[in-house]
Amino acid sequence: MSVVSVKALLAGQCEPGCEVTVRGWIRSRRDSKGGFSFLAVHDGSAHAAIQVVAPAELDNYDADVLKLTAGCSVIASGELVASQGKGQAVEIQAKHIEVCGWVDDPDTYPIAKKRHSFEYLRSVAHLRPRTNTFGAITRVRTVLANAVHRYFYEREFQWVNSPLITASDCEGAGEMFRVSTLDLMNLPRTDSGDIDFSEDFFGRESFLTVSGQLNAEAYCLAMSKVYTFGPTFRAENSNTSRHLAEFWMVEPEIAFANLDDDAALAEDFLRYLLSAVLEHCEDDLAFFNQFVDDGVLARLQKVAHTGFERMDYSEAIKILEKSGKKFEFPVRWGLDMQSEHERYLCEEHVGGPLIVTNYPKDIKAFYMRMNDDEKTVAAMDVLAPGIGEIIGGSQREERLDVLERRMLEQGVEGMEWYRDLRRYGTVAHAGFGLGFERLLNYITGMENIRDAIPFPRTPKHADY
Amino acid sequence: MSVVSVKALLAGQCEPGCEVTVRGWIRSRRDSKGGFSFLAVHDGSAHAAIQVVAPAELDNYDADVLKLTAGCSVIASGELVASQGKGQAVEIQAKHIEVCGWVDDPDTYPIAKKRHSFEYLRSVAHLRPRTNTFGAITRVRTVLANAVHRYFYEREFQWVNSPLITASDCEGAGEMFRVSTLDLMNLPRTDSGDIDFSEDFFGRESFLTVSGQLNAEAYCLAMSKVYTFGPTFRAENSNTSRHLAEFWMVEPEIAFANLDDDAALAEDFLRYLLSAVLEHCEDDLAFFNQFVDDGVLARLQKVAHTGFERMDYSEAIKILEKSGKKFEFPVRWGLDMQSEHERYLCEEHVGGPLIVTNYPKDIKAFYMRMNDDEKTVAAMDVLAPGIGEIIGGSQREERLDVLERRMLEQGVEGMEWYRDLRRYGTVAHAGFGLGFERLLNYITGMENIRDAIPFPRTPKHADY
Repeated sequence: MSVVSVKALLAGQCEPGCEVTVRGWIRSRRDSKGGFSFLAVHDGSAHAAIQVVAPAELDNYDADVLKLTAGCSVIASGELVASQGKGQAVEIQAKHIEVCGWVDDPDTYPIAKKRHSFEYLRSVAHLRPRTNTFGAITRVRTVLANAVHRYFYEREFQWVNSPLITASDCEGAGEMFRVSTLDLMNLPRTDSGDIDFSEDFFGRESFLTVSGQLNAEAYCLAMSKVYTFGPTFRAENSNTSRHLAEFWMVEPEIAFANLDDDAALAEDFLRYLLSAVLEHCEDDLAFFNQFVDDGVLARLQKVAHTGFERMDYSEAIKILEKSGKKFEFPVRWGLDMQSEHERYLCEEHVGGPLIVTNYPKDIKAFYMRMNDDEKTVAAMDVLAPGIGEIIGGSQREERLDVLERRMLEQGVEGMEWYRDLRRYGTVAHAGFGLGFERLLNYITGMENIRDAIPFPRTPKHADY
Repeated sequence: MSVVSVKALLAGQCEPGCEVTVRGWIRSRRDSKGGFSFLAVHDGSAHAAIQVVAPAELDNYDADVLKLTAGCSVIASGELVASQGKGQAVEIQAKHIEVCGWVDDPDTYPIAKKRHSFEYLRSVAHLRPRTNTFGAITRVRTVLANAVHRYFYEREFQWVNSPLITASDCEGAGEMFRVSTLDLMNLPRTDSGDIDFSEDFFGRESFLTVSGQLNAEAYCLAMSKVYTFGPTFRAENSNTSRHLAEFWMVEPEIAFANLDDDAALAEDFLRYLLSAVLEHCEDDLAFFNQFVDDGVLARLQKVAHTGFERMDYSEAIKILEKSGKKFEFPVRWGLDMQSEHERYLCEEHVGGPLIVTNYPKDIKAFYMRMNDDEKTVAAMDVLAPGIGEIIGGSQREERLDVLERRMLEQGVEGMEWYRDLRRYGTVAHAGFGLGFERLLNYITGMENIRDAIPFPRTPKHADY
């Protein structure tokens, strides 16, 4: 009587006639007039539940089975048989059903079987993984994360984790969270009345990192190909549907590489990830396509199977100016593109994914490589239909003198260690960043990025 | 002229006679009287460097090649040939060598070729990945991290990331870092003079998490098998060689499982990880065994290939009492075991890995399942020769009434969401935690855990 996952059963890994045990939670119970009950049992391994047919002959049929409600946990054993009903190939003819845990007061069960708003489900985040939607998100997330690691591992990238608590502010941009053990009721002061951070845990002012890139560069210039996949933080007003205070980023960094190599890597990587999800999450994606956003599948297939166009920023601006479209935000060489511009370019102009390169230097970070025109830097954004920018990257400035000029211009100080990388065996190198939750949201079609993380949080909500 | 990694070349993926290009950094240069130079070029993909033979006929032999020093970056192309020398099967007869980046003032290059102390190397952490030792650590770390994900993925576990910024203190234990955006020079106050955290970013006092376990339980009780693999934080005095303020933890959680299942999972997982490293990091482990700790290989093979003994805590205490050994710390039923006790048990008594189970309830956390004796809980520690505790876990208290009694006893308040998990379809479940850097240190034999993270940090050092 071997324990089998619902996924394995539905995938046909056991032949009808086998004795099997499944363990999971009741999704629904339906009693037949013929004197038996149909139980839908899910265990998280697959989108679908397995149907367990419980005959009235079971010892505990009246005492237990007829009282089962959504959310109860059970262990059911019996014979796997070809299903008579529609919608499933096999079902279990139960010989034994053990109830492990009941649901206190089923009428008030917070996620009783009905459609709940996503907003409501965020308030019961500890129970929402039991719903179809969040079970599906969890499985897609897992497949996606594993695809990230597998992609790089198979290509000889080394995984590096950047420090999360840091004294340096990566881009001189982005509000940061302070990390401290100082007693707020009794703050140490210097003679001049400032806070004395030498008394703090790390002996200086410390923050949560906004990016692991600069650290990854140090490893890249020793190991050739590296990537980070870890959390980053932004203390910006995150009470929108598109921003998170805490999110995971994938940041590969490659040596002996220019912007072209970077763009090629970004395209190959993104198409690999989407292909992996299309291959391994068929049922979950079908669910999102049916119940959340009916454009999900077409979009993913498009991006996975189409070569990405490439276009210069300057050309992109010309196209936008000539488009005749009324945009909310202004279009002019030197301004950053907004989501509406990005989406017009890839959705309406190109009709597919697009990589825009060589942005004006004044709207980009100090570490991006200066082009010969001295006006643009070797930066790129990968734009995808339905979302706009999904990846941002650049070739890094590997020339110490140019880097120092840029740092001066942008008021970036210190970072001797980062300059050192250009003093000792510098090489052309490049990399990009991909917001993991942003990609997950794109894949699932969910509107609010809070639904792409296991435990959502708003500025006024941090219980978990 | 295809670009090939040093790893691929040394693994024989190209036949002698092929034209190849390698890109990397000079480890050493040796000039032969015969009118050519031997360059050792490493690119991070493998422990060894590839030997590049640069003939004096090269256009830039005098101008460039003869000036190469450790750390310079080069692109070398030529024919792969069987090596005449010892120590390598193949080498490259260079037809072209391009120097990408020189080393400013080779005499002061911080990691010029000689043996440096690990303490010194921590102060040049951005350059230390170029050393043999830290290149090896990086590769082992990557293999290990990928083995973690692969193990769970192949067994239908879902990857969950717990929130890092949290308002709850997991175990009621462990000093935490505060996360805040309040202006320290101008702190908001309540009427009673306390800090007004309703003005802080999340509207309440927030901290960095010490463990993802409780959150993982919520997912476990929906998806059956889950794991976290992410950072955790402890604001304890970390200025020792065994503690980090920021470290990664692996925390699997399984439903419909008791302590025996948990112990079986821990054993299987640990043996899998060590087997993966033994299989994929042969050269790097040989290096650690030769230069860092000559017991590394024997220890890893022992743990990977030996079934783990199991023993009750009460029995372990009796054995320690009868051992006749002089321990620094006292041995008595009811006290926690120290490293010296753990190591005696597995190294001298059992002679191999050991899982100790059922610890006194008073030294363990509120969420561990009470045994019928009402004196012990279903906790376990996995002890390994050469280190002592390497994994700690427990069956979780799934009975709401017992949990609430334990919370009351230990003064744990709130956490209605955690109690909810026992109200709605509770099941027996269990899990454990494995400190990733601790395991990495164990594998490499390095003494200081700071050398198991890419960017080391002491309480007085947080530049990165």
